[in-house]
Amino acid sequence: MKALILAVGDEVLSGRVVNTNASFLAGELEKLGIETIKHITIGDNEKMLRSEVAEFINSDIDILITTGGLGPTHDDFTKEVICDIFNKEMELKDVAYQTLVNYFGDHFAKSNMKQAYFPVDSIVLPNPIGTAHGCIFEGLGKKVILLVGPPFENTLMFNLGVKPYLESLFEEKLLIKEYTIMGAGESKIEDYLSDFFKEYSDIAINPYASMGKIRYQITTKASNEARFIECNKKFEELMDPYIVSCNNEPIEEVVFKKLKELGYTISFTESLTGGMLASTLINVSGSSEVIKESLVTYSNEAKIKYLKVKEETIDKYNVASMEVSREMADGLYELTNSDVCISTTGIAGPTGGVDGKPVGLTCYTIKVKDKYLTKEKVFKGDRNQIRLRATMYILYELYKILKEI
Amino acid sequence: MKALILAVGDEVLSGRVVNTNASFLAGELEKLGIETIKHITIGDNEKMLRSEVAEFINSDIDILITTGGLGPTHDDFTKEVICDIFNKEMELKDVAYQTLVNYFGDHFAKSNMKQAYFPVDSIVLPNPIGTAHGCIFEGLGKKVILLVGPPFENTLMFNLGVKPYLESLFEEKLLIKEYTIMGAGESKIEDYLSDFFKEYSDIAINPYASMGKIRYQITTKASNEARFIECNKKFEELMDPYIVSCNNEPIEEVVFKKLKELGYTISFTESLTGGMLASTLINVSGSSEVIKESLVTYSNEAKIKYLKVKEETIDKYNVASMEVSREMADGLYELTNSDVCISTTGIAGPTGGVDGKPVGLTCYTIKVKDKYLTKEKVFKGDRNQIRLRATMYILYELYKILKEI
Repeated sequence: MKALILAVGDEVLSGRVVNTNASFLAGELEKLGIETIKHITIGDNEKMLRSEVAEFINSDIDILITTGGLGPTHDDFTKEVICDIFNKEMELKDVAYQTLVNYFGDHFAKSNMKQAYFPVDSIVLPNPIGTAHGCIFEGLGKKVILLVGPPFENTLMFNLGVKPYLESLFEEKLLIKEYTIMGAGESKIEDYLSDFFKEYSDIAINPYASMGKIRYQITTKASNEARFIECNKKFEELMDPYIVSCNNEPIEEVVFKKLKELGYTISFTESLTGGMLASTLINVSGSSEVIKESLVTYSNEAKIKYLKVKEETIDKYNVASMEVSREMADGLYELTNSDVCISTTGIAGPTGGVDGKPVGLTCYTIKVKDKYLTKEKVFKGDRNQIRLRATMYILYELYKILKEI
Repeated sequence: MKALILAVGDEVLSGRVVNTNASFLAGELEKLGIETIKHITIGDNEKMLRSEVAEFINSDIDILITTGGLGPTHDDFTKEVICDIFNKEMELKDVAYQTLVNYFGDHFAKSNMKQAYFPVDSIVLPNPIGTAHGCIFEGLGKKVILLVGPPFENTLMFNLGVKPYLESLFEEKLLIKEYTIMGAGESKIEDYLSDFFKEYSDIAINPYASMGKIRYQITTKASNEARFIECNKKFEELMDPYIVSCNNEPIEEVVFKKLKELGYTISFTESLTGGMLASTLINVSGSSEVIKESLVTYSNEAKIKYLKVKEETIDKYNVASMEVSREMADGLYELTNSDVCISTTGIAGPTGGVDGKPVGLTCYTIKVKDKYLTKEKVFKGDRNQIRLRATMYILYELYKILKEI
């Protein structure tokens, strides 16, 4: 089955809003085994909308998914125009009307009223956080899915209403497994797995890389279950040290759960990462159970004042050194008594690099109870990328240690 | 003048890569007064590429900008196919050939050689950080611009080569001014400015909103200079309390410069923001001059231990209170003696909200020398958005105070 994704809206066309809906939808369609043929973005322009829909009707593409133009203003006409082209009779749909009443009370602007009308034979797609509903209808041998534009509402609407509908179109279910991979780059892993890819060429194995991690998705049809299980097992064997989760959980969530399970507390003393490690972990709800206090010791003075790092260690080895990171972790333990004490120091750049101490150098210590891991590693990118990559990598290293306990 | 932006590449079509090039290019074209008519994304599919380019040639659109497909592999054929359609004679271009030699040495793969060939009458667009060059040529009454796909290279190539070319097409230069606005939402500001927009309807005034800030761009033709100056002056008058920069500088950079200028040091003690304020400021290169130490005091114990917050204050007012934030700032000053001491406490959610203390409640104190600002404000969004919005807003509040000194 083939799909076309059509974004309607001046704000996307003019570049004010990045079209993340298109990539989200294309990714979801791929999981369902539906091939996206094209993305198109046009403005709030009725003539162009009519022309694109006419072209779709004359094409061999099965599904049209539109995003945007379902609001109450005169610029919002995606539904009205497309239903007109498909010659659909409209009716007031209770579920949509009720949403408007709940939101605005009994008296709402006439312009909003059109948001309650949908084709008689359509499935109305609920929007739990807005007044604009979407819909699905069939006609002229095509399937048409009208979705809202705001990405958060778009995602919800797709997951709640569209996914079940599309799944029902296939007699055969798809088997899907996702792995989050950290600790190695995409090209290195693609090389490492090249024989594996050949061996399982009958199964879709797709990487989705983002800062500091790669999500691998393994997909096949239900009839291929034995091979699917075998493929997953082999993947887990090959990638064991790099797999941090099988359900899209971010590394901070995985680390938090491990710490909680062990009853461990954690503190950071951050120079290079400057609060990013603490802030990342604190983004997990409930993290107050494991992280009680943390320090940003950016200057030498702060390292000496709070952590009792020795001036001579700084003078002898440089502040960006494993020796200083070790003393920082020790000092942090003295101060906080936390089960896990992590320190970072290094050179975030763009200046400050010297021979043997390049920009991106990150020295870190992970002290868990009385065991130490002290390492240095050079991360690439601009200042922010270096700090972000270091943060992700150190959380990954911590995860590896906690996993063994 | 009208433009079409055509992305070519399976990775964009499948959603693995978000098409940020399209929004960047559309935004830049708008600044130059060029109207983007449509964005299209197709895969690495020669037949579809031919069909899209043929449609472009038959349309009233003046400029085609493609992204992607300029690499060395068999999947990269954007240039070859389009030059074939436009019947362009190709030749080896020295500047491109030299890049390949510099990168690979004298002996490089035959597949790379095609990257050195361009239409005889084309402008070759340099790529300072990759081997794939772009080009500009004219033919069949159209202008064609072929750009690389990777966003960072794409941006560089546009700024270095395409912008000057497009500017040269206009006899008249454009006047552009950009303002970064913080401290108020887009709809509030749009309402507030509605008379101003009417008064200056001959001038393009466009908002670009992102997390916690809005960039306003004012654009007009050089012949309209008197009105442009008047319009900017009026905008500055109306928006004075909200303007944080006129050159796209982020708030942390503006705050850092102010602190440095005043010779002030700064420390944070962060509960709700959990290190995000320190981490954001530390992202400015050179920030070690102003931020020496900072604390993440997430638990009540940490607030008591480091900052001498009184247990009775926590019991009486709740830890998420202005009273506790005030004691935190005082304690931070005792500990660090910093000129600026900032504290945050509150309820980041998703749970923990109670009557009168909703999720999103942020209590903060900004102590500058012996002056205090203690406030509370409720931010919306998920846990991460609340923390991010609070961070941006507090930096904005600090900026307002520093500006007056």
